[in-house]
Amino acid sequence: MTKLWNAQLCTALGRGLRLQSTAAAYFPSEPASPVLKTTIPGPKSSERLAELGKVFDNRAAYFAANYYNSIGNYIADVDGNQYLDVYAQIASIALGYNNPEILKTAKSDQMANALANRPALACFPSSDYQQILEDGILAAAPKGMSKVWTALSGSDANETAFKAAFIYHAAKKRGNNTFSPKELESVMQNLVPGASDAAILSFEKGFHGRLFGSLSTTRSKPIHKLDIPAFNWPKAPFPSLKYPLDQFVTENKKEEERCLAEFEKVIQQWSTQIAAIIIEPIQSEGGDNHASPSFFQSLRDLTLKYDILMIVDEVQTGVGASGKFWAHEHWNLTTPPDMVTFSKKFQAAGFYFALPELQPSLPFRQFNTWCGDPSKALIARTVYQEISKYNLVENAATTGAYLYGKLESLSGEYSSIFNLRGQSTGTFIAWDMSSSAKRDMFLIESRKLGLNIGGCGDVSVRLRPTLVFEEKHADVLVDIAEEALKRLG
Amino acid sequence: MTKLWNAQLCTALGRGLRLQSTAAAYFPSEPASPVLKTTIPGPKSSERLAELGKVFDNRAAYFAANYYNSIGNYIADVDGNQYLDVYAQIASIALGYNNPEILKTAKSDQMANALANRPALACFPSSDYQQILEDGILAAAPKGMSKVWTALSGSDANETAFKAAFIYHAAKKRGNNTFSPKELESVMQNLVPGASDAAILSFEKGFHGRLFGSLSTTRSKPIHKLDIPAFNWPKAPFPSLKYPLDQFVTENKKEEERCLAEFEKVIQQWSTQIAAIIIEPIQSEGGDNHASPSFFQSLRDLTLKYDILMIVDEVQTGVGASGKFWAHEHWNLTTPPDMVTFSKKFQAAGFYFALPELQPSLPFRQFNTWCGDPSKALIARTVYQEISKYNLVENAATTGAYLYGKLESLSGEYSSIFNLRGQSTGTFIAWDMSSSAKRDMFLIESRKLGLNIGGCGDVSVRLRPTLVFEEKHADVLVDIAEEALKRLG
Repeated sequence: MTKLWNAQLCTALGRGLRLQSTAAAYFPSEPASPVLKTTIPGPKSSERLAELGKVFDNRAAYFAANYYNSIGNYIADVDGNQYLDVYAQIASIALGYNNPEILKTAKSDQMANALANRPALACFPSSDYQQILEDGILAAAPKGMSKVWTALSGSDANETAFKAAFIYHAAKKRGNNTFSPKELESVMQNLVPGASDAAILSFEKGFHGRLFGSLSTTRSKPIHKLDIPAFNWPKAPFPSLKYPLDQFVTENKKEEERCLAEFEKVIQQWSTQIAAIIIEPIQSEGGDNHASPSFFQSLRDLTLKYDILMIVDEVQTGVGASGKFWAHEHWNLTTPPDMVTFSKKFQAAGFYFALPELQPSLPFRQFNTWCGDPSKALIARTVYQEISKYNLVENAATTGAYLYGKLESLSGEYSSIFNLRGQSTGTFIAWDMSSSAKRDMFLIESRKLGLNIGGCGDVSVRLRPTLVFEEKHADVLVDIAEEALKRLG
Repeated sequence: MTKLWNAQLCTALGRGLRLQSTAAAYFPSEPASPVLKTTIPGPKSSERLAELGKVFDNRAAYFAANYYNSIGNYIADVDGNQYLDVYAQIASIALGYNNPEILKTAKSDQMANALANRPALACFPSSDYQQILEDGILAAAPKGMSKVWTALSGSDANETAFKAAFIYHAAKKRGNNTFSPKELESVMQNLVPGASDAAILSFEKGFHGRLFGSLSTTRSKPIHKLDIPAFNWPKAPFPSLKYPLDQFVTENKKEEERCLAEFEKVIQQWSTQIAAIIIEPIQSEGGDNHASPSFFQSLRDLTLKYDILMIVDEVQTGVGASGKFWAHEHWNLTTPPDMVTFSKKFQAAGFYFALPELQPSLPFRQFNTWCGDPSKALIARTVYQEISKYNLVENAATTGAYLYGKLESLSGEYSSIFNLRGQSTGTFIAWDMSSSAKRDMFLIESRKLGLNIGGCGDVSVRLRPTLVFEEKHADVLVDIAEEALKRLG
């Protein structure tokens, strides 16, 4: 069967049918395995990075990419190498490189119009913005959420959600009163009562961004936070579970109960000063730490008990990779969270909410020049529509289960990989290695073998492939991982 | 002369020559004056805004725009009205609506590639990112600046600049030492010494954004700040000058000296705790407040004396409208500022710098997922190239001088407009009205007459047209302003 024919067949099969390979339909010329032409990093890559480094800080760079030659699950560098990419721009590429439907959107007149006439959305919204939102970002809204505030990055999404929480918290306290003269005067000095002394509670090892408010809730690593002023906001422990979860049910339950008790203690200490908590469904930068649905349900119950808002940070977990569109759907909460933030795979960013009072009582409070970006909302719409059309959330679930099974075998064979996690969270899979150095060597060795893969936490390897990552890609991943493990000895 | 012929002539005249009308060259079908078809706001606009308001907070909206029908200096709404736009998306539209060169960039393969494959720029930069920067954002760099950090909005630009300042400040204090165990431990509690207790000093009435760090330096209005936690950072007075400047030289000099003395006092009180100051060349949101070059030179001298970094916020003033590419070029500083932030008219955002130490000694400190956006850098490149090609900075200077003259006459005739300012700052012109209510009525009345115009501060009207705003547009603006003044009585 030729590749072209394959693509046509898949297109013809259309909506709803289980396709042989969505990746093949999108990317008839996607490589079957990595293509290696030079040592890694290649000479041109090193030269390019050195040059760029003179004007832009790129010391975190792995290679200089050639996005014209990247396709599907494979990223190309300037030396002609093509890597299977299971890092995907830190979990941001949803539909594969040069996805034809995204390219179509990118080349549309609507996109050109959005780029050439970027509006101040809250002042002069385009007449089609609502439709763009309703066909995309809002059609994907988590259960119980009907409104959205659009922003520009994950940090920005979280900070605007925090602002909504603080304004709501202060309004509740103030009742129907207007701002007092003392509030109006003190706020210009950055002092209470006009400036709030309330707080956002976050969890140990959580990551919520790097701007000043979001960084105050980030608790991942010192290097993310050192030397930057931070608000003295509270934190609570996140469970340190043992994996695989089904083998440590009793211990894990005990650990979660310990954390819940500690969480309630912190809330009580802070009395009514906590405006909201923020939590990731799976702590990603902090090391892919999981907790049980019942832990999150208990957290939700406690936030309701103490009248504290709950913000779920789905910046990294959202948009399908976990095997549900939103990872918090795994919890089956009896009451939805108050806000859910998103970014990355949607390209567009922002937060969802339902509570009408999370829209401040006056305009120009939740406000800025752009308030989002229609060009990104257009991309988000296509991402959502393609995910629906090709059942890509289901693909992440089934491919994830297949991949987990293979990694479980590998973990049985190689003692250097352990604490495998993500059995039922799609391709959102990670494992630990014996040390930070060993983990880093594994990542480097894998890249040399044509696998672009990322780490998280101190000793973890995390998988963040696209949503068009399939069993055939999982096979390549596992083969290379095994070879890298062999080489590490 | 037909419009088409006119456009061809202008294109033929090409680079370097003074053109009859760049606007006519770009926009042969730009209206000669506003087109009004309904009452303002029109019925379709009201309906659209009400619908959009159900899912997105748009209570700050003036009308629902139709960007397909907008052209050059004229913005269209959904009711078929076309307004002369001297607000330009809060100073963000550089080259006019549907500028053909921006549309060409928007429809290019390079743009489609950038949109479809948005990279984590600090990890996997595209091989062409350097060239895009060098031909655009970096080619426009202020004198003395050779490096750039790219970001996503003005607030984000300022906050990343603040982070650079805090990291630099801490490194200076720490010397060559590594992080101490106490720093590594305390920072995870958001406490000193790991978290910094240093500060950014800003000026009364300054505006630097609305995220938590930038909002702590924003001192424009209570409504921008109420109920949001803020860092207890210092502020200093910004001169309250009398206009026209040339008639109040002695008083203004005295006022600036008072502010400088107060500034130095605040610095001394805070001892070595101030990492940087941030200041706008013309305070924009805060009311279009000007100060003299010698005031800024003295500030620069004091920052050098006390070893404090100087950040110039050119988010609103930058990219040509002031009659210089960067408004701080009006100062002729003997030592350039340490950082200059930008956004708005460039669509791309970020900060320039020269000092190598403003790049942290370790990677992953100034870092986030996207670190900018190549699709925006492409737009910025075209903006820069077109500004150069058509001498649009000079156009802003000469059109501004012409417009200022006409407004000066109007101000002589109508006592309700006074404190006219911006005599030598291009189209960056503003004036005061007798009250906030009167100013708001003027803005509404102008819009009804087909002029989209914005306010700032408590009682000011600010002009923020595009860079292709010419004498013919200035004539329309002044005619409508006069008619609105007459109607207000």
